[in-house]
Amino acid sequence: MDKKRLIAIARGESSASLVIKNARIINVFTKDIDYGDLAIEDGLIIGIGNYKGQVELDYSGYYLAPGFIDGHVHIESSMLTPNNYALAVMPRGTTSVIADCHEIANVCGKEGIDFMLKAAKTTPLDVFMMIPSCVPSTEFETSGAKLLAKDIKEYLGEDNVIGLGEMMDYQGVLEGKEEVLDKIKTFQEYRIDGHAPGLRDLDLNAYVLAGVGTDHECSEPEELIQKVKRGMYIHLREGSQTKNVLDLLPGLNPSYYDRILLCSDDLHPNDISKVGHIDNNINLLTKAGIKPISAISMATINIANCYGLPNRGAIAPGYIADFVLFKSLEKIEVIDVFKSGNLVVKDKVPQFLPKVIDYQQVTNTVKLNLNNIDLSFPLKTNKVNIITLVQNNIITKKVIQEVVLKENQFFSEGNPDLLKLCVLERHKNTGNIGRGIVKGYGLKNAAVAMTISHDSHNLICLGDNDEDMFLAIKKTKEIGGGIVLVSKGMILDFLALEVGGLMSLEKQEFVIDKLIKLDKKIRGLGVSKDIEDPFMQLAFLSLAVVPEIKVTDKGLFDVNTFSIISLEAGDNE
Amino acid sequence: MDKKRLIAIARGESSASLVIKNARIINVFTKDIDYGDLAIEDGLIIGIGNYKGQVELDYSGYYLAPGFIDGHVHIESSMLTPNNYALAVMPRGTTSVIADCHEIANVCGKEGIDFMLKAAKTTPLDVFMMIPSCVPSTEFETSGAKLLAKDIKEYLGEDNVIGLGEMMDYQGVLEGKEEVLDKIKTFQEYRIDGHAPGLRDLDLNAYVLAGVGTDHECSEPEELIQKVKRGMYIHLREGSQTKNVLDLLPGLNPSYYDRILLCSDDLHPNDISKVGHIDNNINLLTKAGIKPISAISMATINIANCYGLPNRGAIAPGYIADFVLFKSLEKIEVIDVFKSGNLVVKDKVPQFLPKVIDYQQVTNTVKLNLNNIDLSFPLKTNKVNIITLVQNNIITKKVIQEVVLKENQFFSEGNPDLLKLCVLERHKNTGNIGRGIVKGYGLKNAAVAMTISHDSHNLICLGDNDEDMFLAIKKTKEIGGGIVLVSKGMILDFLALEVGGLMSLEKQEFVIDKLIKLDKKIRGLGVSKDIEDPFMQLAFLSLAVVPEIKVTDKGLFDVNTFSIISLEAGDNE
Repeated sequence: MDKKRLIAIARGESSASLVIKNARIINVFTKDIDYGDLAIEDGLIIGIGNYKGQVELDYSGYYLAPGFIDGHVHIESSMLTPNNYALAVMPRGTTSVIADCHEIANVCGKEGIDFMLKAAKTTPLDVFMMIPSCVPSTEFETSGAKLLAKDIKEYLGEDNVIGLGEMMDYQGVLEGKEEVLDKIKTFQEYRIDGHAPGLRDLDLNAYVLAGVGTDHECSEPEELIQKVKRGMYIHLREGSQTKNVLDLLPGLNPSYYDRILLCSDDLHPNDISKVGHIDNNINLLTKAGIKPISAISMATINIANCYGLPNRGAIAPGYIADFVLFKSLEKIEVIDVFKSGNLVVKDKVPQFLPKVIDYQQVTNTVKLNLNNIDLSFPLKTNKVNIITLVQNNIITKKVIQEVVLKENQFFSEGNPDLLKLCVLERHKNTGNIGRGIVKGYGLKNAAVAMTISHDSHNLICLGDNDEDMFLAIKKTKEIGGGIVLVSKGMILDFLALEVGGLMSLEKQEFVIDKLIKLDKKIRGLGVSKDIEDPFMQLAFLSLAVVPEIKVTDKGLFDVNTFSIISLEAGDNE
Repeated sequence: MDKKRLIAIARGESSASLVIKNARIINVFTKDIDYGDLAIEDGLIIGIGNYKGQVELDYSGYYLAPGFIDGHVHIESSMLTPNNYALAVMPRGTTSVIADCHEIANVCGKEGIDFMLKAAKTTPLDVFMMIPSCVPSTEFETSGAKLLAKDIKEYLGEDNVIGLGEMMDYQGVLEGKEEVLDKIKTFQEYRIDGHAPGLRDLDLNAYVLAGVGTDHECSEPEELIQKVKRGMYIHLREGSQTKNVLDLLPGLNPSYYDRILLCSDDLHPNDISKVGHIDNNINLLTKAGIKPISAISMATINIANCYGLPNRGAIAPGYIADFVLFKSLEKIEVIDVFKSGNLVVKDKVPQFLPKVIDYQQVTNTVKLNLNNIDLSFPLKTNKVNIITLVQNNIITKKVIQEVVLKENQFFSEGNPDLLKLCVLERHKNTGNIGRGIVKGYGLKNAAVAMTISHDSHNLICLGDNDEDMFLAIKKTKEIGGGIVLVSKGMILDFLALEVGGLMSLEKQEFVIDKLIKLDKKIRGLGVSKDIEDPFMQLAFLSLAVVPEIKVTDKGLFDVNTFSIISLEAGDNE
């Protein structure tokens, strides 16, 4: 880059390659509008003023804002590889994301992280990576990889690596666990993301003192204020499963807007398509009465400041020319998107094609041996611990119930609304199978199997008969991971998620289409109307860090006591 | 540092070394007050909440704020070495400064910078250094050192070095001068301070594009707004010579308070003592109607954010325990100061003694040969360019006037209110003498000489007769630099500034006392009442970057044409 030449262009001594004319340019520093020509050269914003361009584009009637940044996202939740994810989110105005690839890291370890970093570079989207801190999430499950401090240390200084991913093991931090503190120390010069739902008072002091600087798990306004007061940056999250933006609104005050960031955390492909991405967070805030430019700042400069991304998140000289154009501030509907000065989305349509990516290291990840599978539920007593679903939530309730046994075994048959849930270890062929009984899902004469099952992503299977369950499991392995729906010995439909068993190699449209078909078909099999997303509901039934009772490949897990428990309810309960 | 132990203290599992009780704790994140015990351990803030301390101090009736930070200062202007400077400013609540040591660098080069860095470490004050970018300021003067990009590069990564000092050569930036851009490139990963009075529009775009991120030279509200809009952080400066805080007030708006910083730039020792330091900037803003906690934020967290100083500028877990205590928010009068958890100022009295510093490398810097000195002003014509002083300002006006000559030479005698000004090169013994004639100062039968003369700090001497002038020069050399006042062959008084000819080895009280005496005596010698500070007025008569006509060791300098001109006025003028 020839700075002297750029300086001359900034001074108007020679014309810029591109000049945007007549747009109302949003200034996130002063929170108002700039008028003037926007000059662009070498992918950088050169200046606002009176400029001539070799190409001049007239954007009369448009607002121009910095490209949106997602402050915290797990790309894997989109079921799309980073290249296809870029195709999905850039039309919504996203030009950068702060990603934590802990889903694929749980399956493929460092090869998963490397894949994400590499795949992201095939797209115009800038993906900044927070290296996963908690792989695996707990010691009570078998993940595909275990990342120690020494492993994640290898990423220090690597291109686009900007910090340590959400420190979900806040209990480990508070207890001063050596391995946890080692990881924090390794990244002490970097941003360290938090994940501490409900943490307050002295324990919050301790968590922040340890070095954690952000949190995206606030659910109450007072919690947000307390965390801001202790120096944290707070993400307002609007994801597919967890939506906090409106809940947290009463906790916002202009005097600390600069500490507020927007993020999606987890978005499914259909939500990106239907509801949007960070544009949705902004619009929600605007509709609720926050000034649009303040909301835009939370999605741009604030995130750049928090994560130390220089020259990003604003329209000013020397900043990367990432910007979006739309016609209404009250409800942003992005029309054109420029990334590094190039028009990458025109009339809402991406203008780029992702390059071919190398996925050899992250496919064929379903390694369980089909000969080893025992789906029986032998029981010594008929008083058992039941996983009871809670409407629109990923938490579950532990309920003790008496069931009908046949030859000392549990079957769904004869036990209305009770399904068998199996989590089969699929990374190392240990043969581990965890078992649980689920109430409130409502599947009949069918089974569903999938390799998305948080956070270790073992193979999870729910069904009311062993034959369909086995077929679903078999097919899931056959397709290299994914979602399979079986009824009465027939494979009704499936979505292959070849990459780590989490992401499809296909584009968003294909994945959405498959998901809609699967959803329609599973709902025809008796699934309760209370369940918003039958597959995601299932995916979280193995997440051992969210209350109250889950299943990992090591068995039924009581989150409250943080221990594996028996299917049989103890006498003391 | 044993993090596990600190975490346990934060959780209240064991008591902290120190707990501050009952203070109203200022929260610069939310801009309001926190109530609770403040726990401190290992020099860090552990938390706010319910804490027990091995030592508990009751600060009922006090406000507690983060220690103040000066966002931009030349310590040399205090005429105190860093250790004595700390004694002067810490009682005003200053716990950190962002310093640019370009005065001593102009005299001693890297040895000057090294001295400042080393001397600062003998005090509790944290001195963060911006490495001088413009040594010398112009090519039209002889400085003691010339620092090229390759020289300043050596400071990258050095402890407490955080950026590149104010890029005063904005013309060089705009012209794309290679050496200037090289320096910027060298520090491109660091903060680069600006200095661009009045720069606007396209040239401002160019300056910011080059990489400059701050400015402390705004004098008009609209200029401040324009610079904030282009992404700059703006210092509100309140120094001894230049005071901008109140002028810039109409340009402030809460929506970009986070981009506003406070600084002193240059403060003389008597002003620190009488008026204060950054506490004065805060009080001025408060009195003018800015909310006190907003003003405090500009002197704390905003500066830490701008300069990337982690864990500084706020009262929150993990932050360095730098804080100040005072009783009124409306007019801050700091009473106690804690630095890294230690009480360094109690009842306004410093509780520390500076260590002995090694100043061998930065003394004996007056190297001119007394045998070489020719103070005569031979002239071919009586129509000359006169340096006319402007009241309360460091700018001067170029006025052409006819003078009375005697034997083709100019003497003050017979030319009312016209004085001889000589700038004698004192670094390399070149024998250079620059000459000018000054109007509006008013000295009679006397001469003053000093080695503070911006920015090269040659020996500057003003007088109405050659004998007193020579004596003043001789004495200045004898004392190793300083300020000398002579009248009728007698040395009336002097202040030795042994360190680089800029700083005294004595403490603030001694220096103030001397300056008061010198001021009193020079005012008895006919100095105009319009001149606020006769010595500082003189020190700026060599500053070739401030309009309109100055003298360097190379001759009379026209700032507008940026060239050396003759004493004799040209025919075309």
